[in-house]
Amino acid sequence: MDKNAPIGVFDSGVGGLTVAREIMRQLPEERIVYFGDTARLPYGSKSRRTVIRFSEQIIRFLRTKDVKAIVIACNTASSFALEEVRKEVDIPIIGVINAGARAAVGATKNGKIGIIGTEGTIASGTYADTIRNMKPGVEVFGKACPLFVPLVEEGLLHDTVTDEIASRYLSVLKEKYIDTLVLGCTHYPLLRSTLARTMGADVALVNPAYETAVQLKTLLRSMEMNCDAGQNLSQGEKYQFFVSDMAEKFRAFATSILPEEVKETIQINIEEY
Amino acid sequence: MDKNAPIGVFDSGVGGLTVAREIMRQLPEERIVYFGDTARLPYGSKSRRTVIRFSEQIIRFLRTKDVKAIVIACNTASSFALEEVRKEVDIPIIGVINAGARAAVGATKNGKIGIIGTEGTIASGTYADTIRNMKPGVEVFGKACPLFVPLVEEGLLHDTVTDEIASRYLSVLKEKYIDTLVLGCTHYPLLRSTLARTMGADVALVNPAYETAVQLKTLLRSMEMNCDAGQNLSQGEKYQFFVSDMAEKFRAFATSILPEEVKETIQINIEEY
Repeated sequence: MDKNAPIGVFDSGVGGLTVAREIMRQLPEERIVYFGDTARLPYGSKSRRTVIRFSEQIIRFLRTKDVKAIVIACNTASSFALEEVRKEVDIPIIGVINAGARAAVGATKNGKIGIIGTEGTIASGTYADTIRNMKPGVEVFGKACPLFVPLVEEGLLHDTVTDEIASRYLSVLKEKYIDTLVLGCTHYPLLRSTLARTMGADVALVNPAYETAVQLKTLLRSMEMNCDAGQNLSQGEKYQFFVSDMAEKFRAFATSILPEEVKETIQINIEEY
Repeated sequence: MDKNAPIGVFDSGVGGLTVAREIMRQLPEERIVYFGDTARLPYGSKSRRTVIRFSEQIIRFLRTKDVKAIVIACNTASSFALEEVRKEVDIPIIGVINAGARAAVGATKNGKIGIIGTEGTIASGTYADTIRNMKPGVEVFGKACPLFVPLVEEGLLHDTVTDEIASRYLSVLKEKYIDTLVLGCTHYPLLRSTLARTMGADVALVNPAYETAVQLKTLLRSMEMNCDAGQNLSQGEKYQFFVSDMAEKFRAFATSILPEEVKETIQINIEEY
């Protein structure tokens, strides 16, 4: 295994770029091959079996790029597919759930944690199971928020409609007096200010994207698999972006949220993998 | 060609059931094979090339069921793919655009028509081109309404949030003094009361699902390809439903909007076609 090989990162679309961005910040020497499944997004409303099949195809694609590790930067795919695909892959593979759960367990004082995410993520119960395994006795309350992703994609980050929808979705969690809320979908950190205002200052918001990059850093160090420093790669050599559709739209969005301009995004037919 | 063969109807998901329902009402002797691409929905935010590829796969699947004609019951797929796939298919194939455009041209008095639909449908310009070909001089104004489908799927058919979003989306069309509005996405008829209230009583709302069934009836008659009456088929023989994911959820939804209970929906892997 080549320690200078890239890390494979994938998501159903652009959301996982928030995870890629954290990896770029926290592990600036690492190379990344990112795949966004823009032809088949979203994953949040689809079945376990389908999300597993899509994830397996993407992992086969990422293996053709000789990645040294894989990060599933999508809460739904992490919830449904991580345990399944891990059995079949001989390189380290992590999702966003474990890191998010660990941070939530560390943050809660009253033992009441809320999870918001897609229908798939919440229905899977993976966050709740993971948290209860880490700390038995913690109470976990899940709430699916299917309108949040469309609202973010429509650009309504600071808007009365988003406030109203957030107020409806979160009321059931406020009634449970949670003191920690996991933003269990990669789009949700973009709604942080709305969510913070709705929940109130006493509720800690956990962003699994940040925590996942921390976990990846620890993992690579413990395996002595960090990239060598000072390789002087060009941006195109260091960070590669692939999608299954809408390459130009993806490229523009990636440029808007990543620290450097993304010069190229390549479209592939993921169904062939 | 067997005149008692079924009609193939497809959509990205459940929306096309509104077209299937109209066919059941207006052509009660006809058999239907319906396919909903629930693993890859929605189509409205995806590219022309991808929507064409998905449509070609679905048509190959429907051909294995020996359909005598195909209805593309999805505005986005009709906009992007109809002309392309028609070249390669030797059976009649119609979309929803032509029927919707014809009804709009018939309804307008002041020659100002509005079209609402997905980003793909509006960006394609297919409705506008079709209408202008039918009646040069008519002014056509398109407006993409990407939040309408998620709002319908969240069940907010009669809700202040939907009113607010409708008011924002439609204001640009009201300013143009349109007198006819095409509901250019199969989900939108479910918002008819909100749309009617927002636009006012003087604006005619056109539902392409209804018009498409009228066109299909004319087409089958003119080809002398109607099913024979009185075949006494069971519901399962008469109407067959296939999806690429979430078969049970689809079946329950289909039962809720079709005149009879749907007893079975079969999941297939559309990527193999």
